[in-house]
Amino acid sequence: MSPHVHPADAAEAQRVAEATRDAMWPDDRASKLLGMQVVAVGPGTATVTMTVREDMLNGHDICHGGLVTTLADTAFAYACNAYNEVTVAAGFDVNLVAAARLGDVLTARATELAKAGRTGVYDIRVDNQQGAPVMAFRGRSYTMKGKPLVEGLPMGKIVKHKHKET
Amino acid sequence: MSPHVHPADAAEAQRVAEATRDAMWPDDRASKLLGMQVVAVGPGTATVTMTVREDMLNGHDICHGGLVTTLADTAFAYACNAYNEVTVAAGFDVNLVAAARLGDVLTARATELAKAGRTGVYDIRVDNQQGAPVMAFRGRSYTMKGKPLVEGLPMGKIVKHKHKET
Amino acid sequence: MSPHVHPADAAEAQRVAEATRDAMWPDDRASKLLGMQVVAVGPGTATVTMTVREDMLNGHDICHGGLVTTLADTAFAYACNAYNEVTVAAGFDVNLVAAARLGDVLTARATELAKAGRTGVYDIRVDNQQGAPVMAFRGRSYTMKGKPLVEGLPMGKIVKHKHKET
Amino acid sequence: MSPHVHPADAAEAQRVAEATRDAMWPDDRASKLLGMQVVAVGPGTATVTMTVREDMLNGHDICHGGLVTTLADTAFAYACNAYNEVTVAAGFDVNLVAAARLGDVLTARATELAKAGRTGVYDIRVDNQQGAPVMAFRGRSYTMKGKPLVEGLPMGKIVKHKHKET
Repeated sequence: MSPHVHPADAAEAQRVAEATRDAMWPDDRASKLLGMQVVAVGPGTATVTMTVREDMLNGHDICHGGLVTTLADTAFAYACNAYNEVTVAAGFDVNLVAAARLGDVLTARATELAKAGRTGVYDIRVDNQQGAPVMAFRGRSYTMKGKPLVEGLPMGKIVKHKHKET
Repeated sequence: MSPHVHPADAAEAQRVAEATRDAMWPDDRASKLLGMQVVAVGPGTATVTMTVREDMLNGHDICHGGLVTTLADTAFAYACNAYNEVTVAAGFDVNLVAAARLGDVLTARATELAKAGRTGVYDIRVDNQQGAPVMAFRGRSYTMKGKPLVEGLPMGKIVKHKHKET
Repeated sequence: MSPHVHPADAAEAQRVAEATRDAMWPDDRASKLLGMQVVAVGPGTATVTMTVREDMLNGHDICHGGLVTTLADTAFAYACNAYNEVTVAAGFDVNLVAAARLGDVLTARATELAKAGRTGVYDIRVDNQQGAPVMAFRGRSYTMKGKPLVEGLPMGKIVKHKHKET
Repeated sequence: MSPHVHPADAAEAQRVAEATRDAMWPDDRASKLLGMQVVAVGPGTATVTMTVREDMLNGHDICHGGLVTTLADTAFAYACNAYNEVTVAAGFDVNLVAAARLGDVLTARATELAKAGRTGVYDIRVDNQQGAPVMAFRGRSYTMKGKPLVEGLPMGKIVKHKHKET
């Protein structure tokens, strides 16, 4: 959240983000298949981890790039749905910076670059356990306006309170 | 293969492509985890199929976009390694055109758009069982020059025989 | 146009496409600055040419990649606006396949890969005068629903007549 | 530059970066055609400005997206050539975040995301005079190893002095 958000709004936005994660996670079979863990969510942000297993390797004996992409895409999904409006990936651009190997613990961190109307742009960076970059993923989101993930919670960015500068 | 390739070269190129697939497939645990089948390979081309299973769905109850990407990336890998030079994905750009659902049979077809020196560009299109487009994936490859997948077979594009126009 | 479109609809769609070009071209100062010519338009398609001038070269003495992109983007714009609904580029992915040099005559050809709701995907290929590929550009469009370029003409894809198979 | 670079190396790297700019700029006719100014360069970084002129507008009366891309691509070029090895753009992915209008003063800032061997990834962000984001551009570079822009100056990243932590 920007420092210009009122603390009460920030707290509610965080509560909504966590509720959307709780709504999505039980049915997120694909992310579970790959042993992922959603370790943090916030408004427009998410952090997800995955350990490279033997059954994730390809014919070059490194982690299949598609599965690293799946990790990044999961972080993207939790970040862009955190405003409680159903949002899907329209596409993404991926740069594979370094190979991931058996046993590597990968962390994908999603942040919001831009969001206006129905479309958004998110940056997801995947690093390994040494903090070395593995992948740069830039995702494009498309929001179904007026369709909440969790009924009864606010939809969209929360701006209720005016922030007073001290 | 282009129609200007001599039939003897085309036959050898096809034989090399199939040998690279045979070298890569036994260790391609990630593609097997997702139940993929490499149904065809050729010089710069590959066709791979995958059926959407229950454990491939995400929190919106559609196939996780990362796993459709993994299918496309596998087709990309077999296509760009088919010249028997170790080649890795440098990155790709993905457009998700339509959702894939439980039970859908997806087919990824990879073709070569450009190849010069160490770098190549491949188009992979993923369709469902109705032939409707699901994903457009454009991959960028990087070749390790002088490093074969299969020792004793020719490396690179095969141009031995001069083609006589009739 | 697909062969399954009724000839009367195809003719009207072509007429609409040409009207949108005629509406956009007089004010398209950027494309004129670079000496472009829109040599053909159709529903979801366009062909635009540009000759590489001295003042388009960069510090490596080849045509600035941004200007080749501008050519492709112009073809993209005429293709995706041809249904008479105001449509803007949301973004694009570019692969520079070969350098363009002083005096080269470049041709950008745009075709539609997918279009659904507000979003579309277009492929634009730029070739030189030898027919060799210079750039592969994949564009993503966003349509302002209900906003025509030319008042009084139909908006969107034209499907009025039922096609009878013979 | 990273804080772990020795000041003597940082100073030499900066001197080399400025020398590559001075070598490229006189012949960079395309960037001059669009009135650009290279306001800063450093090792892997560059800042370039451009004011939107009447002849840069398109048929929607906004700055042609290709020309904003050209600005970003120029910043990319100065950033990735700053190590004094001839480097070209292999491609890029662009997201158009907001329209640029007549008179807007655009600033493109390039930073290095990753660089290994012959390939690099750079982020270029274009903002307007209010600091609002206009474009997110991610570029992919390819370096011609062993080919300097300026003869007699060091090539590649400079690491001569060991940094002593104080």
